[in-house]
Amino acid sequence: MNRVITIGREFGSGGREIGVRLANELGIAYYDKEIITGIVNHTEFTENYVKEVVEGDFTKIIPISIGRSLDGDVDFQIQQMQSIVKAQTEVIKEMAMKSDCVIVGRCADYILEEAGEKGDIQLFKLFIHASMESRVKRCMERRTEAEANVTEKDMEKQIKRVDKDRANYYTNYTLRKWGDKSNYDICFNTTNMDLKIMVPHIATLFC
Amino acid sequence: MNRVITIGREFGSGGREIGVRLANELGIAYYDKEIITGIVNHTEFTENYVKEVVEGDFTKIIPISIGRSLDGDVDFQIQQMQSIVKAQTEVIKEMAMKSDCVIVGRCADYILEEAGEKGDIQLFKLFIHASMESRVKRCMERRTEAEANVTEKDMEKQIKRVDKDRANYYTNYTLRKWGDKSNYDICFNTTNMDLKIMVPHIATLFC
Repeated sequence: MNRVITIGREFGSGGREIGVRLANELGIAYYDKEIITGIVNHTEFTENYVKEVVEGDFTKIIPISIGRSLDGDVDFQIQQMQSIVKAQTEVIKEMAMKSDCVIVGRCADYILEEAGEKGDIQLFKLFIHASMESRVKRCMERRTEAEANVTEKDMEKQIKRVDKDRANYYTNYTLRKWGDKSNYDICFNTTNMDLKIMVPHIATLFC
Repeated sequence: MNRVITIGREFGSGGREIGVRLANELGIAYYDKEIITGIVNHTEFTENYVKEVVEGDFTKIIPISIGRSLDGDVDFQIQQMQSIVKAQTEVIKEMAMKSDCVIVGRCADYILEEAGEKGDIQLFKLFIHASMESRVKRCMERRTEAEANVTEKDMEKQIKRVDKDRANYYTNYTLRKWGDKSNYDICFNTTNMDLKIMVPHIATLFC
């Protein structure tokens, strides 16, 4: 039975790094951006449009008029959205059934829950979070050259914006609260955590 | 530097069992009821009164009249309460400085935070939770003979009552929200967890 570790994460908390390190430590596949590529291959949409849908907030793309009369454009947009959401679900389920893996984001915890409950896979749902202060620090340390002039205040705004999009996307897709500990098996607070030291220990939880 | 693992826990989630197993696995001290004994030894109060204060809800014992004029009785009660809270703080700090240990409940995470930040101890703050369904199941399986007639509905009520007391006590003492994941290093959801299998793995996080 494949071990599948899903990782939800606050922006700047090191969730992606934990995912990569865990996958390396366990010698298993790691999927993040690959999901976008998978959706693009499953549908007729461009990478940018797919990204806008799965990394952003549904409600920015689709006006909240479902349930009322819909004009052709909105109807078409909803169909497109549904295609992408369906493709995302298929891609993630395929990845989980293919081999042991770590999947970051994209509501994978929710999408794979049934497979976990049925015993088709061994599912571990993680959520990674940290204090705003430590997330700003982490993001500032990792600024690109192009971001050299970004201030701590700008960075905090960006973190809040990305988190808001993630939360909205998660709630729209799952009708659950993003980051609510009851939806995950383990929540790690990385505020005081040295990831290099801790991840090999964390990996033993899944051995 | 002593490793100190504090465990906050929802009633029926197996937090106590995790604490006992972790302490055994790591070969370190385990403190739970011993804190009550410690407070009794540090003060002039009976065990029952101490229990009522540290396991219940402050507001049931002390009318909310702090800041207004106090009559002698209330003033005296507040002094008693403060003695117990002070003794609890001292007992927990003494335990943490004495040797590696696991401390269950009693706001130990909050009490020891400063010592952790100053580097006097290596502090790991855990919170253990589970779905209501699994907690009711766990508690029903562990009923004593005297509780033979307790129904699932009764058990759920009892779980909610104990959790409410714990939440009130924690908030009154710390001004924080009990169970809020940002106050802990790791939150474990035991809903689908086999504690016997998982605790040896969890223990490696602290080695």
